[in-house]
Amino acid sequence: MNSEKYSNLYKKEKLKIDAKLKKILSTRKPHSLYEPGHYILEGEGKRLRPILVLFSAKAVGGKFSQAYNAALSVEMMHNFTLVHDDIMDNADKRRGRLTLHKKYDVSTAILVGDSLLSIAYEYLLKDAKSERSHKIIDTFNDGLIKVCEGQSLDKEFELKKVVTLSEYLVMIKKKTAALAEMCCRIGALIGNGSDEEIEVLANFGSKIGIAFQIQDDLLDIAGTEAELGKVIGGDLVEGKKTFLFLKALEKANSNQKKKLNRVIINKGIKHSEIDEYKKLYEKLGVITDAQKEIVKYSKSAIKGLEKLTNVEDKEIFTWLANSLIKRNK
Amino acid sequence: MNSEKYSNLYKKEKLKIDAKLKKILSTRKPHSLYEPGHYILEGEGKRLRPILVLFSAKAVGGKFSQAYNAALSVEMMHNFTLVHDDIMDNADKRRGRLTLHKKYDVSTAILVGDSLLSIAYEYLLKDAKSERSHKIIDTFNDGLIKVCEGQSLDKEFELKKVVTLSEYLVMIKKKTAALAEMCCRIGALIGNGSDEEIEVLANFGSKIGIAFQIQDDLLDIAGTEAELGKVIGGDLVEGKKTFLFLKALEKANSNQKKKLNRVIINKGIKHSEIDEYKKLYEKLGVITDAQKEIVKYSKSAIKGLEKLTNVEDKEIFTWLANSLIKRNK
Repeated sequence: MNSEKYSNLYKKEKLKIDAKLKKILSTRKPHSLYEPGHYILEGEGKRLRPILVLFSAKAVGGKFSQAYNAALSVEMMHNFTLVHDDIMDNADKRRGRLTLHKKYDVSTAILVGDSLLSIAYEYLLKDAKSERSHKIIDTFNDGLIKVCEGQSLDKEFELKKVVTLSEYLVMIKKKTAALAEMCCRIGALIGNGSDEEIEVLANFGSKIGIAFQIQDDLLDIAGTEAELGKVIGGDLVEGKKTFLFLKALEKANSNQKKKLNRVIINKGIKHSEIDEYKKLYEKLGVITDAQKEIVKYSKSAIKGLEKLTNVEDKEIFTWLANSLIKRNK
Repeated sequence: MNSEKYSNLYKKEKLKIDAKLKKILSTRKPHSLYEPGHYILEGEGKRLRPILVLFSAKAVGGKFSQAYNAALSVEMMHNFTLVHDDIMDNADKRRGRLTLHKKYDVSTAILVGDSLLSIAYEYLLKDAKSERSHKIIDTFNDGLIKVCEGQSLDKEFELKKVVTLSEYLVMIKKKTAALAEMCCRIGALIGNGSDEEIEVLANFGSKIGIAFQIQDDLLDIAGTEAELGKVIGGDLVEGKKTFLFLKALEKANSNQKKKLNRVIINKGIKHSEIDEYKKLYEKLGVITDAQKEIVKYSKSAIKGLEKLTNVEDKEIFTWLANSLIKRNK
């Protein structure tokens, strides 16, 4: 497989998306709304969601040029969720920069999120053929509703004493995987894909979305500070019920359970305790479990691609899945 | 004109809308998201915006039954703006009940607002003929973007020392009138109206929206506490730059200007000073000015209706415009 070619394609398209995102709000008024909006859109991001739209459009025989506006749309929607989630999580930093509500204020951040979502809807249908508009809008709405529901479950879990691994999976399917699935569906719809092609790509998006989220949970404890750009073990410090934490609870003996339950009861641990908990994770084998789970979902994503006819498209998505599980940030 | 008939029609349709709104979220999950959403939708409201959708659909030859879902959609969108605005304004009460972020918390209110908007989009196109879906979505997006921009200008004005009356009008055209205009357009689009009919109704919505907002400003000082259900003079206490305040500034002599500028400098006045400022408003004649302005926009709204062919439809909208400017709450 020509990984370098696909990697270069990703980089090239990412740069295009970056450049287009910088233009969207630059001439809009009032400044008080769109300058902070611009601040968010010019921040660094993987641009994975718009790339899924572009690659999916191409995989069903469409062209990138048909799908840029929809790609920008999903990235704006994603940024809307980040801005509002950061308020809810009281996060100070995002992608190495101050979060919007810290740089400005909560009111501005709420309103900027709202306006990003409305402009996302504006861009969504710019290039859609009218007979597909309805389906594209329905897909986008469905993704948005699931993201809201997933975020609500996530906030609920913060307060719940007991969360099971299967409840966690329901949550990330809504909060993370639904959006990746939506991106693939929208790209395939815009590229005029058949119903079967749409389902194949939707399955890819959903599976890769789950793998992506578990990878996020894994990197938080198994990554390096230099690469991640943030402190290792942050999820434990915040008392988050991640895949690794819930898996550890499942496997723990009664003494280990007591130790893990302290994270819940105290709503997080001290920085000085991170190493101790990391060692417990290693002892219980949940780092390996997470790696296996990521590979499982990733393989399942790739397996579904067999139904795509074009070899290069299969390769692009396979490369994408593999590079996502190899990522270190 | 048969005012009683139209008044009964409004009441009857309002009750239907109320009942439908109560059902929308009742079976959705998670409870943590939709129970607070339900709390907002079951609150009392005039339901003016859904009524504009229904009446507009009928005025172009459509049926109410085609327009209920779109009517619910605009009411959900309106409630989305209320929930988020109440956070930004730090408001404690709305329609005599605790605001959402006071009853629950800010995170819940942000997320409930977001989910109401996404469900509003879901409902918008339920009954739309596919060839009109694109236009309906564009109209909805346009209204939503203007509302965000209007709210941003409103927040901007809070910090600005000098705001002119014409800047104020630009703001309320976006923040209030754009939504009423949008409702009329959407109703007319769903009812399959001609381009001319759509513009006639859009003009009605926009003009009546401006009259409605100035009426809100007027009632705040000239209404009665018993009817309004809140303290008279609240806008002065909060230092809001309303139509009456800005008109007073325009007409004031230098001594009166000093007095008015104290409202801006001190970001509001004391409750004990309200009477004094009300007397100044009366002396400067701005209460009469506001009344005249409301009548001017209302007449302009009604005048445009001449182009409608059906007598009863003209009468319904004329009755609606008149009853809105006669309202005391």
